[in-house]
Parts: sequence; C-alpha cells; structure tokens
Amino acid sequence: MIIIMRSHVTEEQIQAVEAKLNAAGLKANISRGIERTIIGAIGDERKLHQESLQALPGVEDVMRVVKPYKIVAREWHETDTVIDIKGIPLGGKTLQIIGGPCSVETQSQMDLAAQGVAEAGCRLMRGGAFKPRTSPYAFQGKGVEGLTLFRNAADKYNLPIVTELMDVRMLDAFLKQGVEVIQIGTRNMQNFDLLKEVGKIHTPVILKRGLCATLSEWLMSAEYIAAGGNHNIILCERGVRSFETAYRNMLDVTAIPVLKKETHLPVIADPSHAGGKAALVAALSKAAIAAGADGLLVEMHPSPCDAWCDADQALTPLELKQLLQELRPLAKAVGREL
Amino acid sequence: MIIIMRSHVTEEQIQAVEAKLNAAGLKANISRGIERTIIGAIGDERKLHQESLQALPGVEDVMRVVKPYKIVAREWHETDTVIDIKGIPLGGKTLQIIGGPCSVETQSQMDLAAQGVAEAGCRLMRGGAFKPRTSPYAFQGKGVEGLTLFRNAADKYNLPIVTELMDVRMLDAFLKQGVEVIQIGTRNMQNFDLLKEVGKIHTPVILKRGLCATLSEWLMSAEYIAAGGNHNIILCERGVRSFETAYRNMLDVTAIPVLKKETHLPVIADPSHAGGKAALVAALSKAAIAAGADGLLVEMHPSPCDAWCDADQALTPLELKQLLQELRPLAKAVGREL
Amino acid sequence: MIIIMRSHVTEEQIQAVEAKLNAAGLKANISRGIERTIIGAIGDERKLHQESLQALPGVEDVMRVVKPYKIVAREWHETDTVIDIKGIPLGGKTLQIIGGPCSVETQSQMDLAAQGVAEAGCRLMRGGAFKPRTSPYAFQGKGVEGLTLFRNAADKYNLPIVTELMDVRMLDAFLKQGVEVIQIGTRNMQNFDLLKEVGKIHTPVILKRGLCATLSEWLMSAEYIAAGGNHNIILCERGVRSFETAYRNMLDVTAIPVLKKETHLPVIADPSHAGGKAALVAALSKAAIAAGADGLLVEMHPSPCDAWCDADQALTPLELKQLLQELRPLAKAVGREL
Amino acid sequence: MIIIMRSHVTEEQIQAVEAKLNAAGLKANISRGIERTIIGAIGDERKLHQESLQALPGVEDVMRVVKPYKIVAREWHETDTVIDIKGIPLGGKTLQIIGGPCSVETQSQMDLAAQGVAEAGCRLMRGGAFKPRTSPYAFQGKGVEGLTLFRNAADKYNLPIVTELMDVRMLDAFLKQGVEVIQIGTRNMQNFDLLKEVGKIHTPVILKRGLCATLSEWLMSAEYIAAGGNHNIILCERGVRSFETAYRNMLDVTAIPVLKKETHLPVIADPSHAGGKAALVAALSKAAIAAGADGLLVEMHPSPCDAWCDADQALTPLELKQLLQELRPLAKAVGREL
Repeated sequence: MIIIMRSHVTEEQIQAVEAKLNAAGLKANISRGIERTIIGAIGDERKLHQESLQALPGVEDVMRVVKPYKIVAREWHETDTVIDIKGIPLGGKTLQIIGGPCSVETQSQMDLAAQGVAEAGCRLMRGGAFKPRTSPYAFQGKGVEGLTLFRNAADKYNLPIVTELMDVRMLDAFLKQGVEVIQIGTRNMQNFDLLKEVGKIHTPVILKRGLCATLSEWLMSAEYIAAGGNHNIILCERGVRSFETAYRNMLDVTAIPVLKKETHLPVIADPSHAGGKAALVAALSKAAIAAGADGLLVEMHPSPCDAWCDADQALTPLELKQLLQELRPLAKAVGREL
Repeated sequence: MIIIMRSHVTEEQIQAVEAKLNAAGLKANISRGIERTIIGAIGDERKLHQESLQALPGVEDVMRVVKPYKIVAREWHETDTVIDIKGIPLGGKTLQIIGGPCSVETQSQMDLAAQGVAEAGCRLMRGGAFKPRTSPYAFQGKGVEGLTLFRNAADKYNLPIVTELMDVRMLDAFLKQGVEVIQIGTRNMQNFDLLKEVGKIHTPVILKRGLCATLSEWLMSAEYIAAGGNHNIILCERGVRSFETAYRNMLDVTAIPVLKKETHLPVIADPSHAGGKAALVAALSKAAIAAGADGLLVEMHPSPCDAWCDADQALTPLELKQLLQELRPLAKAVGREL
Repeated sequence: MIIIMRSHVTEEQIQAVEAKLNAAGLKANISRGIERTIIGAIGDERKLHQESLQALPGVEDVMRVVKPYKIVAREWHETDTVIDIKGIPLGGKTLQIIGGPCSVETQSQMDLAAQGVAEAGCRLMRGGAFKPRTSPYAFQGKGVEGLTLFRNAADKYNLPIVTELMDVRMLDAFLKQGVEVIQIGTRNMQNFDLLKEVGKIHTPVILKRGLCATLSEWLMSAEYIAAGGNHNIILCERGVRSFETAYRNMLDVTAIPVLKKETHLPVIADPSHAGGKAALVAALSKAAIAAGADGLLVEMHPSPCDAWCDADQALTPLELKQLLQELRPLAKAVGREL
Repeated sequence: MIIIMRSHVTEEQIQAVEAKLNAAGLKANISRGIERTIIGAIGDERKLHQESLQALPGVEDVMRVVKPYKIVAREWHETDTVIDIKGIPLGGKTLQIIGGPCSVETQSQMDLAAQGVAEAGCRLMRGGAFKPRTSPYAFQGKGVEGLTLFRNAADKYNLPIVTELMDVRMLDAFLKQGVEVIQIGTRNMQNFDLLKEVGKIHTPVILKRGLCATLSEWLMSAEYIAAGGNHNIILCERGVRSFETAYRNMLDVTAIPVLKKETHLPVIADPSHAGGKAALVAALSKAAIAAGADGLLVEMHPSPCDAWCDADQALTPLELKQLLQELRPLAKAVGREL
C-alpha cells in the first residue's frame, strides 16, 4: 500500500501513519520527495483497512498495490480453467453457445425450444423458471413447476440446463432437479448471502456482471463463491448501463480481453440482454467471440412474438441455427471451434 | 401505449398490430401521418407486453403513456405520506437526521455512539449488524449478536433503530429484536424476493437507490413492497455511480424534487456514502435538505480512525452535533424544522 | 410529434396545444384515452420547437416521431456510401486499416512510420500535427511544419494522409498540403463552427464520436457537415466514457450495427484510443470488424517507448503487420476482405 | 511518480525503468516488497511522460503523485479569488445570480428581459448571441447583431453582460462590444485553441464543465486559460450526462465542495441547463448555494412559451424575482448574502 501525504504534512502526521502500519505488522518505507512525502507499506497489505489510513490527518491518498482477489486471479493460477458440465467443456478451445427462451412458459413451448436448441447445434440450454422483473405486476416465472417443465424438455435432447437462482431458499429445489449450471443474475451479483450459498456446493455457476459493476467488483463477487470452495465459476458479460438510449445496454467487449488477463475463469457474453433486440444479436455475438469470449448465452423462443417476456430480443429457432452457421468460420478465424 | 411504425410499413403489418391490441382487449386508433403511421392503444395499457409489440414486423418504437407504478404514485395519492416511527414522524415538516456508525462493533462502541447520536439531537439511530462488503475477506458484520448490542445501546437513549436486512432468512431475527426501521441496501434494491418479504410486514422500510437505478426502476422496487401491503416506505438517495473518480459516488440531488413530484413517499439522503469522505458530509447534507429531502442518514463513529469499515466517511460525535446546529437555520430557510 | 397531457388536464390546456400546432401549420389529432389525453401533430414536425410545446401548461411529455437527421439517414438513402480517397474505397467490401503514429515528431520518425504502415499492408496513414492535449504543459504537436513532415513521408509510399484539424484558422494550411482526409476529433464533435467549415469543402472527413455523445447527437453533427454540402463523411467509434477504470474508454461495439442501420455512411473504429493499451488493440480490432466496422484507425510508432504522446497504446511496425495478418481470415469470415 | 512493477518482474526491467527516470533527470527509489517491486521517482515528475513509462516491459501501473494543475490549484494560492466585474465581486461573501434568456431574439425581448433581471435584484445579465445547437436546422443565434441588441438592453439597466463565445474568429467582435464576461460553453471546454485565445486577454471567463468531464480535466482546461495569463476564471457546474432519463442532466453538487478545496477560483452553477425544466430550477438553485456555490446562471425569458430555444427551462420575470426572495434566507443560513 502506498500512502501519499498532503503537501504541508507535519512530522507527527507521518509518525501516526507509521504507528498504524506497525500496529498491523507492516513496516513503513518513508520517502520525502520535493513536493510530497510518500510512505510505502511493506508487508501483507490485505491486513490493512485502506479507509482507516485514509482517515488519518495529513493523508491525501492511499493506493493498493496488490489486487484484492486471489483465488480467481490469473496471477496465482496461470492456466485457463475449463469447467466440465456433464462432459461438455466450457473454457477451452471449443466455444459453447447456450440457447433457450428467456422464461419457461409451458411444456410444449419448452419442448419446441429444446428441439430448436439441439437442432441448431447448441450443447447447453438456458431458460428461467424464476424471473427478476422490474415490475411486481409482470409475470414472475413459473417457479418450481417451471424447473420440472425445463428438466423434462431438456432431457429429451440430453441438454444440461442453465437456470437462474434468485432466492437462497430455492437452492434445494435446484439441487433436487439436478440443475447443471446455476445462473446468478445481474441484480444479484452483490447479493452476498446468495453467493456464499452457491459457494458451498460444486455446481457450476454463471455469474453475470452487475449493471454498473467494475471488473474488480465482479471478480470480488466471484471470489466470494470461490472462497466458499466452489471454483466452477463462469463470468458472463451482459452489457452495462450507459447514457445511450438507442439500445438497451452497452456490451463491454473490452472487459473480455481484460478479464482473460486478470483471471483464469471462463468468460462468456449475453448478446441478447446486452442489445435488447433480436436484430443486434448476430453482430454482438460475433464481436464477443472475436474479442475472445468462451461462449454465449443466446435467447431463442419457438415463437418470439408470443413470448411472455423480452419478446423482442429472442431469435427464432431458424435464426439461432443460422447464427451458429455464421459463427463457425469466425470461430475458426480466431483459433477456436464451435 | 403509442406504437410508431417504420416508414415503409405495409397494411398487413398495421393490421397485425391492431389484432394484437384487440386480443388484449384494447382498441387501436390508427393515424396515418405524412412520414409515419402511428397507432394509439386505447384501454388499459398495463395489460400489454411492450416487448411483444416491439417484436412485431414493421414496428419501429413503442412508448408507454402511463407510469408503470400505481400505489406509490402521487398521481393517485396527492398528500405527502408521513411515516410514524414510535411517535417520531418522518416525511412531514420536521426533518429527521438518523445518525450512527456504519457497523456495530462492540457494546461500548455502540453505547458511545448512541450517546453521541442523542446528544447531537438526532431522534433515530442507524448501525449495521449485517454488512454487504465487496470483499469476502472484509469484516462481514457482527450478525444477530450485533442486533442485540445495538438494541441495548439504543434503548438507553430511547432511540428507534434503523438497520440493514440482507437475507430473507434473517427477517425473523429482526422482528424478534423489534427493529423499528428495516433498511434495504443499494445492492439489494432489485432483490425482489427480499422486497416481497418486507412487503408482508408493517415495519417501515428505508429503500436505498441502486447504484445505477433509474428513478422509475427505484419506484417500481418500492411498488413491490407496497403491492405486498406495506406502505411505510422511505426512499433514500445515496449517490449513483459515475465516471468521476474524485469522490466515491455522485449525489443526485435532482432526484429529490423529481421524486417529490412523482411519489407521495418521504425521501431522505445519505451524504456519507454518497461523498465517501467526512469532509464532504456537511456540504452534501445541506444540498440535500435545500433540495427538499425529508431527512438524512449520517455516519458517526465515536472514534472514526478505529472504525472497522468506512472509517474515512464517519463524523465524530462533536462533528455530528455541529452539523445539526448548522442545519437548523438552513431547515428554517426552506420552511422546515429540525 | 406526440404530446401526452397530464392526468387532470383541462379543456383550455388541450386547446392551447392545438392552437400552437395550428400556428406552425400542423393539425392536431386529439385522442382522449381512459387515463390520458394524447395529441398527435399531423404535418412536418421539424417546424415545431419541442421545448415550446413542453413548456405549455398541462403537457406532461412530448415525443418526436421522425428522426432529426435527414441527409445522413439511411431512410432516405438506402445504399451504403463508399468514399473514394484517391482511388482507395472506404465503406465497401474492402476494409481499410489506417495506421500511423499518434503524433508527428521528426522526419525520420515519420519515414520509418510510413514504411511500417506500407509494409503492414495498410493503404492509408494517420498522424497528428496538431494535438488536443488535456494539459497545456504537454507537447501540443509540431503544427504546420508537422504537416510537411507527414506529407513528405507519406508521399514516398503513396499513402493518402489522415490528420486532425482543431482550429478553423488552420483549414487553409490543410488544403494547401492536400490533406486527403481531415479528422475531427472527439473533443470537437460539437464544435459547430468547425463542422460548418469542413462542410463547405469536399475533402473526406472522419468524424470521431464525442466522449459521451449519443448516436443521435453524433449523427446530427454529421448532418451539420452534410448540410453544408460535404457528404464525404466517415464516422469513427473510439470508445466512450464510463464508470470502469480498468481501461481508458469503453468501446461501444453496439454502436456499429445500430449506425449501419440508421445511416448510409461508413463506420470505422479506433481500438487504440478506446482501450488505451497496445495489448488490447488486437482483441478490440477483431471485435469491431466482427460487429461490422468498415475499417480501423490503429496507432503504430517505430519505437513506442520513445513516442512523445500516448506511448503505451502504439503498436510496433511488426505488431501492426501481425495484426493485419490476423484480421485477414476474420474479415473473410464476415464476408469482407482486407 | 510511483511505478508498480508486475509480480514476476526481472532485474533488467527494473533497470530499464531506472534508466528512463535518470534520463529525465529524476532519481529512482526502488522498494522490493513481498509481492511487488515499487519504484518511486524522485524529482519533478512533470518532466516525465506517464505513458512512456507505462509502455516499458514489466510495468503494471504508473501513478502520479502531484496534481497536474498548478496556477489554478489552491495548494499554491490559498485565498479565494474574487473576480471584479465592473465593480461587482464574484467569488466572495456576496452571491451573484446571473439572469437572462437562453438566446437573444429581438430588441424588445431583450429590453423586457433586462428589466426583469434588474427588478429581480440580479447584478449581471446573461444571453446568447451565438448558440451551439445540436441540429444544423435549429436557430443558430442572432450573431454579431445579437451582441448589439444585448448591449443596448443591458446598458439601460447598467448590467454587465455574460455571453458565449464559440469561435475564435468572433473574439474581436466580443472585445469591440465590451462583453464583460465571456462564457465558454460545455461543448467547448476542451476546444484548446479557443481556451488559448481567451487566455491572452483579461476579460473574465466563465468556463462551463464538459458534459462528462472529470474535475481534473476541467481544472486543466482552466489551467490552459491561466497559463496564457488570464487568471479571471469562473467555473460553472451545469450538470453531467448520466443514465437517468427523468431529467436532462445530473447536477453534480459534490463537485462544488471538492472544487472549493482544489482550487481558489469561484464556482457557480447553472440549475436551468442541469435540470432542463423550469419546475426544477428553485430546488437545484438552493442545493447549489447550500453546497457552497458562489453564484448561479439562471435562465429567464419575458415569455417562456415563445422562447426560440430551451423554452421549457426558462423562468418568467416574476418567478426569477421569487427565486431571489427564497434564496436570501438560505444564503444567510450558509453565511453568505445575496
């Protein structure tokens, strides 16, 4: 940790910082520059409260030197993590496109969706039984019954399922249905009690980025899960909030190469929620893959105009199939395969 | 709802929109302009899925005409809601300054804090027993034991307590301790299961704004609580995320008068978390009161440099007392009292 | 234009809106809904001041129906514009990678840079003689002399030059040196007097997006140039400002497909300024091309560590060459060529 | 400057940094910590290019220790600057409310406006003869003729005038008309050539904040003016761009106390452009004054519904008068006077 003192600092203020460092078992390296005195903390800075130094008189700024995350950091784990989902690898050379509807509606809708997902060439299926909706008056998902409908449909095509967990009290139902991948949604990225619970199991978790979460905060949320013992974490970039109103969210493709450098975890993208329009899905899918994503979450609905939520962002089964066909040469061009 | 069609729309596309509206029990008012055809939906637009119209061919844009919130809207409830907290009114002419530490640490810290809060002239006390921390390695709060420490300290000075609930499973412990005001934090503003639970009780709820929540989303989260039957809701503006790095968050004072127009609920502000620095608290407190806030959440710690979290944003007991003294003439200047 | 009236609107207020519309030569279509009265303006809404309607009593909201830009809109010009730069097409099937240093420093630096640009396979060269620098104490560019150095170097390799114009008083010097493409930088996207001046000539203009400009504002700035008579406009996405601090700006790839739908003008991207790091250039270049960009502006310096500005974002000549090699199969995978 | 090296740094990489520092006349203080090696640059860091260090192999991060601005910094000039505008002080105990219309339209409109400004108790008048408009088809201002209309009207009431300069070529016309305060607008905050020109004269300058400018960038733009010799600079906070769509811009009141600490220059606010609605002006004016602003820029029009631009944000003359009456007790409550 580096402590920058104000320009007219007193000797007592410098000593108070030194005393605080010593009390935490660190040493102080004091460097008196022409315009500023700088104090370097030597030792394990994770033992220090940055704010308690900041609060001391004469301190102008305090900067961390070491990243706050450890288990998820590539610095301590150089090779890419490849997560095994019932034999399907996520994070290696092969890209995974996870298709399916925004929400589980009926058995026949899910059956048609599963058929479309399989026929398009996807190996994993998504669908929401519990839906985080901005309005209390909007459809809130089919709940536990929805998990059964999803399971039935997916099993016919041997597709592992990805579905969102919003409430710690529902975890048992997820485990009972053998959900293969638990999704933690954007609004729950910092629902720390939920993160702790999924940290205690070994089911792979897709952790979506919060609507305005920094990469550091996001990795710290992954660290919550990892610290509990579950290292099967997949990060999903899904667009962030911006000033632009011409589309729903701003897909942050830069996050992808930056994350690949910072962490060994797989990184996927959700072009459907990012753009919020079916017409943008192909371009954003390609951009994410080109930037280095390990896979995609893509919304598809057997009949988009009749979807109970997010209708205008779902592809048709045929469009999903075409998307995968278009992605194949692109994947090859960046050294991957679909 | 207003549906704007694309410039080269066909008659079939217009009819498909009309059919969709009729199916939902609404009528279509079709207006063929020089450059665009516009369709107005006549009837209760809340029955319509905006996205399913958006997904229809030929549709360029769909705009809601009616606000999506109802119980919390001033449109349907003209007079200000004043919430009674054990005889202390929040939302009327009298401003309420809620003081106290970021987190509950020890009995003696809480006793000193409660004394300081009371001596400063505050009528309500805040303090966190459960702490949402970005890092899994940071102090996570004293938990249930913390509630007891808080209760003991506050009771000595007859101060109702305000404390954050993060996990639905802890609600019983909050009720058992008779927590007078439950705080729903920034990270949980869209934790809908938590909102539904606090909607079932009658304890007043302070609902903090999400880090990048729009006013509409925030009011919809309040609507979740209200729809459950709990109308004792206080909105708390606490700064939003921005591009500026010179301070922690950007206090959105404009939100205050806009909310006062949109909703009948009380609106308070948290200058401590907004600025993230003790030195900014006075200026931001004054700005919020001047803009029309009904109260403040202010961090105070008996010994800020020793605080276990957010040390550099807490006032000392003396500074809190001075703040209230400075706020009194200001409150009077805007027709309020402290 | 659609005018939404408040819920308790009076008949006089409705008539005042109608009178205002009639005064501008439009007709009013009044639709009295259950919860709101809506007035549609029939006629050319560009004649109306949106704000003057907004200011009328009883008006809640006013929404435009027609896009405010016309010459640059695809709606009125369906085919892609391809700009001819001394025989090199920008905007068609062939992608153009414009390479070169951030700033013109010396003749030998520019000669080496031009050699590297040509050897990498680029057909156009960039370089700044006038530099917009945040600090008045930073190197401000070589000025008019820099244009000569640039011209000399580029001519040896037959490369048309792209360089930034910041000041209307320098336009003559640009024309005298035969600058083939004038760049209008991010900070000048809404320098309307400068836009008007480059609208009067026929030299192609690269118009960079403002740091937080919406797509609509950006297209309106292009419309300023087009309205003057110069239709040779290239839009350049270069990253926008966001809350994220892990990299310099957030490349908005979603803007690319949205712009391609809204306008017939070519769209390129600047991965160097967006990410602000040489290590990010390849990933961002690929993402932009995959999303549909027509070309790239890429910084390259013969010796990046010695560059006088933006040193850490420049590629070496070898890295630029490798980048183009990597982009070739990608371009092919999305139906383009390099 | 502090240089943080990567975790697996080599001795050669450390030496290369040292050599670079030595070449710029600085010394290196090398501190080998447990997890990172940190190099402190001893000497005048303003001589160093931060990016050229960043570009060296093995370097993870480079942080400045000294603020990049000097003349405008309070660190080197402790007392508040009070600017004298024809005998009217701006920046001291007395607040200045600068009223007037968005744009100069006609002589009678300006006469009425000047009368209203004077009668409300304002001592300075604002009005735009040159208007930066998003659309090329919108009214662009009356130009030089407008300056004359403004001068005539203001002189009748002895009001110094504040008006916006957009184009360096118009500076002579401004000087000829004896404009007392030149406004540099939001879109030109980083129009460096314009800043340099107003730096050469001694007319006071109101420098508005860019739409997404950081405080540091804004102060650097002020430094451009100051470096030229003109120290009569007034900073004007006018709201920044955000994700919120419920109002036009987000007034950043936190900027006010932070600027007052960082710089000795006066700071005012523009509540009219910030909120974009007349109904928000009073609340935002109060918030800005309460936060420590030295004055306000407030739009007033003799007949707002007929205004040629920004109609819905202008107060009537009566509303302006009432605003000043409401601000008087508030000013007193924060130790100021109106």
